[in-house]
Amino acid sequence: MQQAHTETSAAITPAIAPAITPAAVAHAYLAVWNEADSDKRRKQLADGWTDDARYADPLMQASGAEAINAMIGAAQAQFAGHSFRLSGTPDGHGPFVRFSWTLEGAGGVVGGGTDVVLLDADGRVAQVTGFLDSVGA
Amino acid sequence: MQQAHTETSAAITPAIAPAITPAAVAHAYLAVWNEADSDKRRKQLADGWTDDARYADPLMQASGAEAINAMIGAAQAQFAGHSFRLSGTPDGHGPFVRFSWTLEGAGGVVGGGTDVVLLDADGRVAQVTGFLDSVGA
Repeated sequence: MQQAHTETSAAITPAIAPAITPAAVAHAYLAVWNEADSDKRRKQLADGWTDDARYADPLMQASGAEAINAMIGAAQAQFAGHSFRLSGTPDGHGPFVRFSWTLEGAGGVVGGGTDVVLLDADGRVAQVTGFLDSVGA
Repeated sequence: MQQAHTETSAAITPAIAPAITPAAVAHAYLAVWNEADSDKRRKQLADGWTDDARYADPLMQASGAEAINAMIGAAQAQFAGHSFRLSGTPDGHGPFVRFSWTLEGAGGVVGGGTDVVLLDADGRVAQVTGFLDSVGA
């Protein structure tokens, strides 16, 4: 399909470090959600997310690395013994990455969703918009 | 799941006019893509989209109602005789709406995707991030 004319597409899709693939973004993202140590998560967030990153899904919202770290800790407490796993193949374009995940425990999958991540020009997570694809226990 | 603490969730999920449902957003959105008259599209965009709305999918990007109108016209020219149809059930939370679509012609479905729409506080389309779910002719 022909690309539409726009003077500001650069502002919409800033250059991203070529090493960053949708799969790498998804795996790093899920690693944060599966990291039980708050200090380690804080380090992961400091390295891979912007300080003012924003997160929103149907159940949780948080803004800023510290609030996001606390939010993830609260979610882990809610689903102790469960882990997030990548489902399907991540895709993306420009600064956007999309991937699906499942939340699994000893009893199997209890939920799943699809997250859309906006990366900044340095490839750090600036915004996450999550949706639920299935509802578990 | 317990809502995570955040001082700025209001900034992440501004109030939206209660009349606006994900389904209504999706149907209005697809109506713009299926409107062949550029002037009518311009009116639809002026009514339902912000002046500086941004659109990005793997094939097209545009910023501003005029560029988006031209982009849609170019896509329609590329797929003459085809129309966009809602697939599945739109969902959303806060200012975000997600829905899937197919592009169909006399020969059947030639493609499909999932779009995530960010609405402003007045319920107007401020940003669209599209992904392709299937590749057609």
